[in-house]
Amino acid sequence: MIKQLSIIGVGLIGGSLALALKQAGYCERVVGIGRNAARLQAAERAGVIDSGTTDYAAGLAAADMILVAVPLNAYVEAFENIKGKFKADAVITDVGSAKACVIDDAMKVFGKFPANFVPGHPIAGTEKSGFEAAFPELFRKRRVVLTPIVRQGLTITSAGAIEAVTAMWRVAGAVVENTDAEHHDRVLAATSHLPHILAFSLVDSLARENNVEEIFRFAAGGFRDFTRIAASDPAVWRDICLRNREALLQALEHYGKDLQELRNAIAHGDQGTLMEIFTRAKTARDKFSFS
Amino acid sequence: MIKQLSIIGVGLIGGSLALALKQAGYCERVVGIGRNAARLQAAERAGVIDSGTTDYAAGLAAADMILVAVPLNAYVEAFENIKGKFKADAVITDVGSAKACVIDDAMKVFGKFPANFVPGHPIAGTEKSGFEAAFPELFRKRRVVLTPIVRQGLTITSAGAIEAVTAMWRVAGAVVENTDAEHHDRVLAATSHLPHILAFSLVDSLARENNVEEIFRFAAGGFRDFTRIAASDPAVWRDICLRNREALLQALEHYGKDLQELRNAIAHGDQGTLMEIFTRAKTARDKFSFS
Repeated sequence: MIKQLSIIGVGLIGGSLALALKQAGYCERVVGIGRNAARLQAAERAGVIDSGTTDYAAGLAAADMILVAVPLNAYVEAFENIKGKFKADAVITDVGSAKACVIDDAMKVFGKFPANFVPGHPIAGTEKSGFEAAFPELFRKRRVVLTPIVRQGLTITSAGAIEAVTAMWRVAGAVVENTDAEHHDRVLAATSHLPHILAFSLVDSLARENNVEEIFRFAAGGFRDFTRIAASDPAVWRDICLRNREALLQALEHYGKDLQELRNAIAHGDQGTLMEIFTRAKTARDKFSFS
Repeated sequence: MIKQLSIIGVGLIGGSLALALKQAGYCERVVGIGRNAARLQAAERAGVIDSGTTDYAAGLAAADMILVAVPLNAYVEAFENIKGKFKADAVITDVGSAKACVIDDAMKVFGKFPANFVPGHPIAGTEKSGFEAAFPELFRKRRVVLTPIVRQGLTITSAGAIEAVTAMWRVAGAVVENTDAEHHDRVLAATSHLPHILAFSLVDSLARENNVEEIFRFAAGGFRDFTRIAASDPAVWRDICLRNREALLQALEHYGKDLQELRNAIAHGDQGTLMEIFTRAKTARDKFSFS
């Protein structure tokens, strides 16, 4: 049970978690903290949070769980805003799409890695953003990856904090898994950040054509699905690109080589290689149902 | 009204059109023609066609509408199989995803372009294939592009044939539009063929990694939608790559340049360019609802 969950940044993710925990009766009180009082009032009126405040000290004093849910470029500011204002036994977690940069920011602001901070990433979302898009089922059967700090075989992150965060996400319906931050960042670069880059780039490329209206008119369901992620929040994705830069550039380079191989097979009319690539892709895609 | 529709190649597209026309009472009899008698019998048992035959002369003799719905590499064979076996006033159309190559094949086999042949492309489909996946609503509100032959301002394709094919697709619920084959091929290369190539390549690239199971486990809804088209029929897409090769390679080269620009913005931490690209893409993607 959580007595008070304080959310820094009440958007799609934080809002959906708040709704899920309240619906399950797992959290007595949800307090939203942010810079925009009007947005917090709207979230309160919408029933996503119980109350909102722009005063970090007031919003954090009674919190036993603190969720940082701000864009990746706003972590340093968020950590500075919460520093010294929470209870010694409060558990802190976050929902950032890249984890090594979050750990770096925490070390920078707190001096060392806080043992009660459990970096986390719920692999869930839609192309929509804002608390208006929040719904309590968002995390159901989705995976949440936690990246507690392990140094020389010793877990620095407190076991109790990991347990508390794991329990919270399970209540929201998620499947929780632990891994290290660098590994998380490499895998997510390939499965999430790279596809977003490819889709953004394709839609932008077409949007710059003279006959853009016709192009989109001729587009079918495959294009619609392929490009859905290109409607995602530009600022969120700018931050992800910059904060997971190395892993993303590596994924892009790796992909570029494979795409070049496919391009050459097309250019040379190499039927065998085309069938090999397409069949291997179809087999892999059919095998994973993404329940 | 169509008395007899003969379909060469009863799969998702041909089967769905048959079901739509029968449901609307627009077609008295649908005959399937192909090489595989067992598959034709199964399509008949499933109620997708009224009868099936491997004998082209028998299947075509009474047809007033002939639909060629075979993979792009099988057109020459299909045209040779139907040549001289249909009524002089029968209308022929097709559903190939590239159109210039189909026109080339027709000229090759028939000596000149048959005036009663209306090249067509229903921009509809799913990642599934085979008549088992057919359903009568597939074309509802979808676009069908016809590419009748125009030379020096004169339409070579018969006006009556264009009318008959247009009427047929409208009965199936489609919106029919005319353009020229080369233009069709360029636009479809960008909106359909290129996205398929990108998705096939990404899934194949990940499928070749050692930790493929983990990679797919960490994949979210965005990845699922982005890669849905990678489950498409490999042979169909091999043929499309080879038969619309020039337009596809041009689209790929154009895209490669834009993707390189985005890559450089990431590498150089160029926040302004990232916001510009992502915002332009989101605006374009939000604007078109793909109803």
